[in-house]
Amino acid sequence: MVMKKFINDPDNLTVQLLDGFAEAYKKQIKLDGKTVVRATPKSDDKVALVTLGGAGHEPALSGLVGDGALDASVVGDIFAAPGAPAVVAALEATRRDAGTLLVILNHAGDVLAGEKAFNKAVKAGINVRKILTHEDISAGKDAPLEDRRGLVGCVLLYKIAGAAAEAGKSLDEVVAIAERFNENMRTLIVGAVPATHPANGASLGELADDEMEVGMGQHGEGGGGVMKLATADETARIMLDKILATMAVNSGDKLFVMINGCGATTLMEQCIVLRAVKILLEAKGIELVRSMVGEFLTVQEMGGFQMCVAKMDDELIELFDAPCDTPAFTVK
Amino acid sequence: MVMKKFINDPDNLTVQLLDGFAEAYKKQIKLDGKTVVRATPKSDDKVALVTLGGAGHEPALSGLVGDGALDASVVGDIFAAPGAPAVVAALEATRRDAGTLLVILNHAGDVLAGEKAFNKAVKAGINVRKILTHEDISAGKDAPLEDRRGLVGCVLLYKIAGAAAEAGKSLDEVVAIAERFNENMRTLIVGAVPATHPANGASLGELADDEMEVGMGQHGEGGGGVMKLATADETARIMLDKILATMAVNSGDKLFVMINGCGATTLMEQCIVLRAVKILLEAKGIELVRSMVGEFLTVQEMGGFQMCVAKMDDELIELFDAPCDTPAFTVK
Repeated sequence: MVMKKFINDPDNLTVQLLDGFAEAYKKQIKLDGKTVVRATPKSDDKVALVTLGGAGHEPALSGLVGDGALDASVVGDIFAAPGAPAVVAALEATRRDAGTLLVILNHAGDVLAGEKAFNKAVKAGINVRKILTHEDISAGKDAPLEDRRGLVGCVLLYKIAGAAAEAGKSLDEVVAIAERFNENMRTLIVGAVPATHPANGASLGELADDEMEVGMGQHGEGGGGVMKLATADETARIMLDKILATMAVNSGDKLFVMINGCGATTLMEQCIVLRAVKILLEAKGIELVRSMVGEFLTVQEMGGFQMCVAKMDDELIELFDAPCDTPAFTVK
Repeated sequence: MVMKKFINDPDNLTVQLLDGFAEAYKKQIKLDGKTVVRATPKSDDKVALVTLGGAGHEPALSGLVGDGALDASVVGDIFAAPGAPAVVAALEATRRDAGTLLVILNHAGDVLAGEKAFNKAVKAGINVRKILTHEDISAGKDAPLEDRRGLVGCVLLYKIAGAAAEAGKSLDEVVAIAERFNENMRTLIVGAVPATHPANGASLGELADDEMEVGMGQHGEGGGGVMKLATADETARIMLDKILATMAVNSGDKLFVMINGCGATTLMEQCIVLRAVKILLEAKGIELVRSMVGEFLTVQEMGGFQMCVAKMDDELIELFDAPCDTPAFTVK
């Protein structure tokens, strides 16, 4: 299949998309180079939240910049981590006595840039802590860390840690909450139609017309199980079973579930899958306490979705419910 | 190309998607049969807003039900209008002395059901007025009314009329504001990749690998111009020129522009197109006063987007900026 995208110069994709993004969401965010920052900075006595990641996954990380969530999202080129200097600059710009939490998704480039920037910031005397999201369970919960990728769960971690920061909690407290949520969440991707790379037209992955892959990576990396395309109900059951097998969940527990569309899988389908999840959980006596559907972390026009499940407690629910105002998610 | 969708029984698509939709957005909406209504009803002294339309376009009309927007969205089957009785029931359920505005999109089935329900409601003594959206300019601004379809502009009309109703304006005032905005708006669709019908797998339209169609209808109906696939900048110019040619817009005027993704066209592309629009307007001395990107009215996994442009005045801007809380759009 040929690539049919409304783009201009493939070398300027990120700059041009950020221009439009900043225009559409000027009430919430603005640009500082290729870093997306809050339109109205958070007061200095509150903990700042900074993250980094490649473009091409919109709204993605930058979609969670704003009141009650991220202070800065350092954006790289399409599917590529930004350089460490841009991350250091963001940590300098948000520098404050209250401290900063740097959220890094577990992908090789992001980890390299994030760690390097973190070390430089520490040397420069910045009060910064870091957390690594790695909730992909496609390789198993106890697989080597490099096989447990950071997926859409970061979006929820930004929301929850951001609410804690906005509430005036200390850096230690924000880190503890973020780490608790990080431990509590699991994500699995199912791919059905591979995306095309917007800069070079390459297909990201291969699947036959009657196949899907449970455990596909964020950019079409394998590692998962190719199987016959199943119904929404069957796919939900297969994925939820795999996820719950890695969690200590009992009847009476409260779960959050997000069905995140990867690009071409419609909200209609996401809703049908969420319905299936709810029925499956009810049968186990587990409460679906909060849920989300929508496109938060996409991979261009990929068909498929990410199922993210997190065990919730009262504090996490309260933080999830707290107001926020960002391009991709607003809570009144 | 085969259809790869996560669905179950094609005959139960609407019921199942509405179940999941109601679960994901239970804070804002709930179901009354196949009608989506506000979770917390609006007080009786304020004008109600009701609309109708087929499923398969999620989040679509039901995505704008909630505080500051619609009171009820009567949902039909995939790409099919609901029956008049369900619309009458919704008008009965929202009945109030303050009155109700029924918003009908100009598609044959919706008009038939909407008009029939309207007439029945009037006979039943309900204080109801109606408005028809028909902002598609693909056939020309002065084409016969049946060729001017109601497209994504309805979403903005719900927002603006909903804000007027929430502010306590009378039915006459709400109707006048809705009619002014209805007159002010124009929409044009460009299609690049046809969608497939989720119930029967039929392809909705045909386009060669190097073609796009400016003026494609909401369900792949022709009437537009098939041309070679262009860059984002060229496509934005072609579409904006066609739209502005039908409007009395002068230097110094303020325009709202929405780039609405049809399904598989990414937020990345929508942002790049919005950037192009902003540059084109600036060159004409026209202010891009507000803008939106995102998927509000989709056609399954169709590639392409709707460009909706509206001339704004201070009152319309104020109503657009007013708070609302709906599944697809929340303003704090």
